[in-house]
Amino acid sequence: MLGKLVVFGVGLIGGSFALALKAAGEVGEVVGFGRTLGSLNQALQLGILDRAGFNVGQEVSSADLVLIATPVGKTAEILARVVPFLGPQTVVTDAGSTKQDVVAAARAHFGGCLGRFVPGHPIAGAENSGALAARVDLYRRKQVVLTPLAETDAASIARVRDAWERCGARVSEMTAAEHDGVFAAVSHLPHLLSFALVDDLARRENRDLLFAFAASGFRDFTRIAASHPEMWRDICLANRDALIEELDRYRGQLDVLREALVRSDGERLAATFASARTARREWAEKGAGG
Amino acid sequence: MLGKLVVFGVGLIGGSFALALKAAGEVGEVVGFGRTLGSLNQALQLGILDRAGFNVGQEVSSADLVLIATPVGKTAEILARVVPFLGPQTVVTDAGSTKQDVVAAARAHFGGCLGRFVPGHPIAGAENSGALAARVDLYRRKQVVLTPLAETDAASIARVRDAWERCGARVSEMTAAEHDGVFAAVSHLPHLLSFALVDDLARRENRDLLFAFAASGFRDFTRIAASHPEMWRDICLANRDALIEELDRYRGQLDVLREALVRSDGERLAATFASARTARREWAEKGAGG
Repeated sequence: MLGKLVVFGVGLIGGSFALALKAAGEVGEVVGFGRTLGSLNQALQLGILDRAGFNVGQEVSSADLVLIATPVGKTAEILARVVPFLGPQTVVTDAGSTKQDVVAAARAHFGGCLGRFVPGHPIAGAENSGALAARVDLYRRKQVVLTPLAETDAASIARVRDAWERCGARVSEMTAAEHDGVFAAVSHLPHLLSFALVDDLARRENRDLLFAFAASGFRDFTRIAASHPEMWRDICLANRDALIEELDRYRGQLDVLREALVRSDGERLAATFASARTARREWAEKGAGG
Repeated sequence: MLGKLVVFGVGLIGGSFALALKAAGEVGEVVGFGRTLGSLNQALQLGILDRAGFNVGQEVSSADLVLIATPVGKTAEILARVVPFLGPQTVVTDAGSTKQDVVAAARAHFGGCLGRFVPGHPIAGAENSGALAARVDLYRRKQVVLTPLAETDAASIARVRDAWERCGARVSEMTAAEHDGVFAAVSHLPHLLSFALVDDLARRENRDLLFAFAASGFRDFTRIAASHPEMWRDICLANRDALIEELDRYRGQLDVLREALVRSDGERLAATFASARTARREWAEKGAGG
């Protein structure tokens, strides 16, 4: 049970976290900071917040947990703003989709307080965003990855893990580098590929004809191309090195398939497609992917 | 109203066509040819067929419409088998996902009967296949593209168009080359890209870790990677030239995005993502994609 939670960013991620802890009776008071009065008012009306915060020092010093759930580009700035005011009991976590950049920001701005910082990443869809999209069950049976630093206190990790578990999530731990490698492959690259395809089609003279005949396969493949441009710009830049590595690997794979097409090598194509189908089906049968 | 329909290939595509025409009372008798007795028996039990055919000549000569709905690799062979037996009233169409190869096969095998051949492509999902997957409403509000040859009779086109419209489909016409260009871009390339990603992940040592953290974005992006390997091998080979052209264009797009990543050019990334998002949303709002 947390006495007081302070949330920076009262959108889908922070809002759903607050709603889930409130519904579980696991938090005394939720105070939020947001970019606009409008979003704070909305969060108040939706019951996400008990109060909107105005004084960071006052709110943070008495908080048991601070969740940074802003766009990742803002995390460093908020770490720097909160660190002078940490109370003896305050633990800080974040919800960014990339972790090495957050760890670097924490090393730069969190000084002697690294024991109290627990980098985290809830894996929950974000097709819609904003407080209105927040849901009490967003994290139920979803995964949350924590990437503690060597300096992070075991007690801090336990508090953050416990809070996510109370939201219904399954929590695992890995290093920030492992995390960024995994998500470059299974999330950041697919987003880049989907954006790339739709943008390319959209710039053509015959775009209306093309889109008129796009069907359900296209719909699924490009759903993530409707994701938030600035959010994904930040993610791609924050995880640039791992993403470039994945992209180069993928370009190599496309080169191989191009060669197979040029040679009309049906066996090679069918083997690739069959391997993909088997893996995709096994994955789906495990009930993965939410 | 068709007196007699003969279907080669009693799977999802041919089966759904027969079911829809029967439900609409637009066909007198449906006779099917299939690869196995098992599939023919299944189609009989499901009410797709009135009879299984054994003598191609007898069945085709009295048919008003012949639909070739086998894997595209078989189309040429079936065209050659049926052409000696066309009755004076018989019109032939197909349901292949590529059209230039079908037109070439028709030119090679259909001799003086090109007036009676109407190449077609119903755009309907095929995640599942086989007669069991056939549905009376598969084509409702779906698109069907016809790519008539210069030689095709207007009356033949009208008969095929009418049959598809009775199934609830919206029918349009374009050339086979236009068709293959459009579908290379909006269907064949996305399938290749999705297969390529999953195959690449599936071959890695840490595949279990990767798949364990793949979430809903990955699920959508890779749904088409569960498609039928041999069917997609055939499509890729049949539409090789257009697909290579699209693939090269896409590789160029990836090169540009890689450069933007290397230069940390956030503006370029955000502009690409925003263009994609806008186009994707506009497309979805039109209710496209089924």
